[in-house]
Amino acid sequence: MTRLEIIPVEGLPEVRPGDRLAPMLAACAELVDGDVVVVTQKVVSKAEGRLVAVDPDDASAYAAILDAECVRVLRRRGDLVIAETGAGFVCANAGIDRSNVPDGYVTLLPVDADRSARRIRDGLRASPGVEVGVIVSDTFGRPWRQGVTDVAIGCAGIAAVVDLRGTADAMGRTLEVTEVCVADELASAAELVMGKAAGVAAAIIRGVDPAWFRSASVRAEVVRPAGEDLFR
Amino acid sequence: MTRLEIIPVEGLPEVRPGDRLAPMLAACAELVDGDVVVVTQKVVSKAEGRLVAVDPDDASAYAAILDAECVRVLRRRGDLVIAETGAGFVCANAGIDRSNVPDGYVTLLPVDADRSARRIRDGLRASPGVEVGVIVSDTFGRPWRQGVTDVAIGCAGIAAVVDLRGTADAMGRTLEVTEVCVADELASAAELVMGKAAGVAAAIIRGVDPAWFRSASVRAEVVRPAGEDLFR
Repeated sequence: MTRLEIIPVEGLPEVRPGDRLAPMLAACAELVDGDVVVVTQKVVSKAEGRLVAVDPDDASAYAAILDAECVRVLRRRGDLVIAETGAGFVCANAGIDRSNVPDGYVTLLPVDADRSARRIRDGLRASPGVEVGVIVSDTFGRPWRQGVTDVAIGCAGIAAVVDLRGTADAMGRTLEVTEVCVADELASAAELVMGKAAGVAAAIIRGVDPAWFRSASVRAEVVRPAGEDLFR
Repeated sequence: MTRLEIIPVEGLPEVRPGDRLAPMLAACAELVDGDVVVVTQKVVSKAEGRLVAVDPDDASAYAAILDAECVRVLRRRGDLVIAETGAGFVCANAGIDRSNVPDGYVTLLPVDADRSARRIRDGLRASPGVEVGVIVSDTFGRPWRQGVTDVAIGCAGIAAVVDLRGTADAMGRTLEVTEVCVADELASAAELVMGKAAGVAAAIIRGVDPAWFRSASVRAEVVRPAGEDLFR
């Protein structure tokens, strides 16, 4: 096995609606073939105009935005709503976020974060002409564990789930449960060099297993259908 | 921000009950101060003798082991049991595992994986005399996302959760939810160089933020008390 490097992308300017992220990322990072570029939801949502003006003191206006983003509310406690989004993600407040956003605005999740990742990947293929995987990441909580971690909400060119079922383990036995969500692990690894407050909105992971580069989709591979779910 | 390196620890021999992991790890890796050493549950459980003989065809014998490891069953579907362990982890089959274990045996989780991590850390401080953080990792599923990821079940000398609440984001606003479970992110990052089938049972993460090195506990910082839980 080779070693991995996780490299923060520094110097990314403030992103505005309509900005094209691929050239902005390429200007800040020396990308090479086989890199995985992890970009946070916040800058993707800003580039795609997924900013909504809302008076922070107007609870009913915020409630209306939340209602529009939810297809199902799983739990509610005080201000916290655990909800399922249209794309099938289960997360706090349907992914609506106020941090690192101008006062009086919130960001919504990208409409289709797999498509967002594909656009960035296609842009980087065109110029500077590199073959990379792209992951769009966001910060989610977990029901039984405290502290948030970054997960993948979209991907392109890099596997979301790698299926090792049926391969032999080191003892020669057939493995049982080994569908590994490498996209979430890559998103978490990238977060380690971002820091929530540091303004680093992207990172590069270099040295990823070449076998993991393929057409892929977080929505198709990671989102668990509600019918197969034991906790919804 | 500095870059991180994730380095697989290769050549670790098969671990047997009573083995001391610190010298085995030190013999396979050039550790330096400030490294984080991630060791999988499987080798920790083997070293601690947490192997139980069980006839794979005797369902009632397996059920008795499972019953002893569970304090609460959350959901059951066919062979799959989502259960809470004595340490408070919610996971499939209370962490009992058959992969990478000799035929006719299963591993149980360490009794106290924070203590397991402390022992390894203390051993590495004694010889070769390095100040490192240690994480014991295991592979857990998630309720709403397909594919497993590695998480921390024990830690020593490295923070489990880093609390950024109250610090300012890049826009000068006070951050909302920013207790980041860096121990889980480090465990996930390490898994990327292990590969379930490759027999790599440990990895080193080099370049971690020096501010994260402190006394810490997964059980105290990460395990969510049942009373604060919306899904139990």
